[in-house]
Amino acid sequence: MSFEELWAELAPIGRHGPTQGYRRYAYTPAELECRAWFVAAAGSRRMAVETDRNGNLWAWWGTPADGAVVTGSHLDSVPDGGAYDGPLGVISGFAAVDALRARGFQPARPIAVVAFAEEEGGRFGLACLGSRLLSGAVSGEAARRLTDEYGVSLETAMSDAGLDPTRLGRDEAALRRIGVYVELHVEQGRAQADLDAPVAVGTAIWPHGRWRLEFTGTANHAGTTRLEDRHDPMLTYANTVLAARKKARLAGALATVGRVLCEPNGTNAIPSRVRAWLDARAPSEEALAGVVAEIEQASVQRANRDGTRLTVSRESYSGEVVFDRALGDRLAALLGSPGRPVPRLGTGAGHDAGVLAAHVPTAMVFVRNPTGISHSPEEYAEPADCLAGADALATVLEDLAR
Amino acid sequence: MSFEELWAELAPIGRHGPTQGYRRYAYTPAELECRAWFVAAAGSRRMAVETDRNGNLWAWWGTPADGAVVTGSHLDSVPDGGAYDGPLGVISGFAAVDALRARGFQPARPIAVVAFAEEEGGRFGLACLGSRLLSGAVSGEAARRLTDEYGVSLETAMSDAGLDPTRLGRDEAALRRIGVYVELHVEQGRAQADLDAPVAVGTAIWPHGRWRLEFTGTANHAGTTRLEDRHDPMLTYANTVLAARKKARLAGALATVGRVLCEPNGTNAIPSRVRAWLDARAPSEEALAGVVAEIEQASVQRANRDGTRLTVSRESYSGEVVFDRALGDRLAALLGSPGRPVPRLGTGAGHDAGVLAAHVPTAMVFVRNPTGISHSPEEYAEPADCLAGADALATVLEDLAR
Repeated sequence: MSFEELWAELAPIGRHGPTQGYRRYAYTPAELECRAWFVAAAGSRRMAVETDRNGNLWAWWGTPADGAVVTGSHLDSVPDGGAYDGPLGVISGFAAVDALRARGFQPARPIAVVAFAEEEGGRFGLACLGSRLLSGAVSGEAARRLTDEYGVSLETAMSDAGLDPTRLGRDEAALRRIGVYVELHVEQGRAQADLDAPVAVGTAIWPHGRWRLEFTGTANHAGTTRLEDRHDPMLTYANTVLAARKKARLAGALATVGRVLCEPNGTNAIPSRVRAWLDARAPSEEALAGVVAEIEQASVQRANRDGTRLTVSRESYSGEVVFDRALGDRLAALLGSPGRPVPRLGTGAGHDAGVLAAHVPTAMVFVRNPTGISHSPEEYAEPADCLAGADALATVLEDLAR
Repeated sequence: MSFEELWAELAPIGRHGPTQGYRRYAYTPAELECRAWFVAAAGSRRMAVETDRNGNLWAWWGTPADGAVVTGSHLDSVPDGGAYDGPLGVISGFAAVDALRARGFQPARPIAVVAFAEEEGGRFGLACLGSRLLSGAVSGEAARRLTDEYGVSLETAMSDAGLDPTRLGRDEAALRRIGVYVELHVEQGRAQADLDAPVAVGTAIWPHGRWRLEFTGTANHAGTTRLEDRHDPMLTYANTVLAARKKARLAGALATVGRVLCEPNGTNAIPSRVRAWLDARAPSEEALAGVVAEIEQASVQRANRDGTRLTVSRESYSGEVVFDRALGDRLAALLGSPGRPVPRLGTGAGHDAGVLAAHVPTAMVFVRNPTGISHSPEEYAEPADCLAGADALATVLEDLAR
């Protein structure tokens, strides 16, 4: 089964017709189908498959053992996400195994391909949930209580999918098995777009986090309530969206409000409540804390004017991650040449590699994204660049497992 | 069956536990249960029931005939609406019939209690749909194509409810039967709150309408897309919300954005599209046109800055309505006395009475709202005021049907 065949099998799963985007949310039918695809891909390669205590999928070339060479990414998606973000790393992992076997390579250490669960946090709101649980960054107890938009808990969702949620939490044995982790991922900005290089090596991830903003006011009739009698949380929300952009621009940071839920959400009703999520990222942890504090301050000031209330709660946070320097140098030496060095890039996007970096040597390989578009059905990478990525990954795995 | 019994039977239907608000959307199970309640209430009074071609329910005291005295309101609700908006008028209609029969009154003209369909436009977006269809203000063809948030058309929803959508449209026979229409309704502002009067007589409805605003940008990754590369429609939306408030304030008008839908609505995705609905009302049609034009102009300017696109489409519009002057005088004389005149009020809220006013003499009776809150679970009227309203309605019907 070639790279193209793996791709073609996975491509239709969880694709939403009207938008052509992917809706592969953790433990939904679409994502369970992706998991079945993973099991079949491993099975056809005679790779032993296991689902760990935290819902992460593993396919093993060789007997599972401590200190393995691990590659992979994730299969879940953001709402209406693209085809590459996640799956490209998993497919490239299988394709790299195929390439190494075709060359007759015999690994001295086992090699595993992994698909981490709920990397996007698209359903339960906490990004990199599978790797955070595995590494103990979030407790099993806290994770079980996470709920989706419809009030379904992770505990229930896993049980319904036939998995055991009672064993969620730090998985010492699984962690020991990861000797090194290399994640291949489509680049998500335009940093590589204008470079003559299909692959790049990741250096660092900006600190970033998600904050839930809850604006509370008083529901009332839009046609009969005088403006001066209103407590309209939509006004406070709107002001906060604009403040977030302005404060981020002044701080050289990124701030985005991409998710909003209004209640009761009726055309002729002043809202009682607006919930929104702020995604903020900055070059340093100090800068990030500063920009979020400024946004909150601006929002509170406006809430006082509007007669509304604001509560802010941090839903997730990832400090700055610098990938293992020696490992990065090794990848750069393998993938570049003195005349043609491989680019080395930082990114604002979070990844399971960033979570694992606190525990094991990690590295990332980026595949060029010609438009820089990601988290969108329009996300794209050239087929030739994808194949170059899988080749590069094979080269890296061969070197690490030799 | 007393007023209180009618109220108690209807109260639990379609109530949403977590919010305690009503979710009685046209042709959903909750609303069909309200319809069954109406049929039962009529049946227990030996009133003949019919559902007209446009889904409006009628209960007849006497043989249906042209020129009847008609009262009523609606049973559907806004999302998480209150208990009074609509049902109070229907229940008061039945209670007035009971009171007149108890007095031994024999009407010279038939009396009908009506419940108009989809008055709030809570499901298909067009307020007063049942009375607009009946009077020809919207065509059956256009109505059949209206869809709810999930893409279900009115045609499908009616068929699924066992009704025939092919006969939607202007209903000359039903219109001829309405000799006069008197709608009792809970007041939706604080105009009556500080007056020593449980009921008031309506004079006019401000011109008002709904506009759908669609902001289109480019979905992208919140963590990797530079601010200057973004086309974020949420920014244009936020600016428009604030502009709407400001322009309305300057014009002495009302403007509300109470409904917003974002796509893909993911925390780490710049939105591709934000749809929102503007509800605007003003003392004159010129003022209303002016304020909407100014909001649109401000929004287009911001869209140019954000690199987004805006389309505005008017979903509904109601010109100024002045209720029949002679009928209003007649009600005021019946319900007030020289020493204690009944208040006469205009309102910013639309009603089926406003739609019908272009065709038949119409009047409205308002019941005092102590907080002015409406379109909210907190909507309230004192029981004594509700009973005073039903008494007043009985007095009016007796006079008109004598």
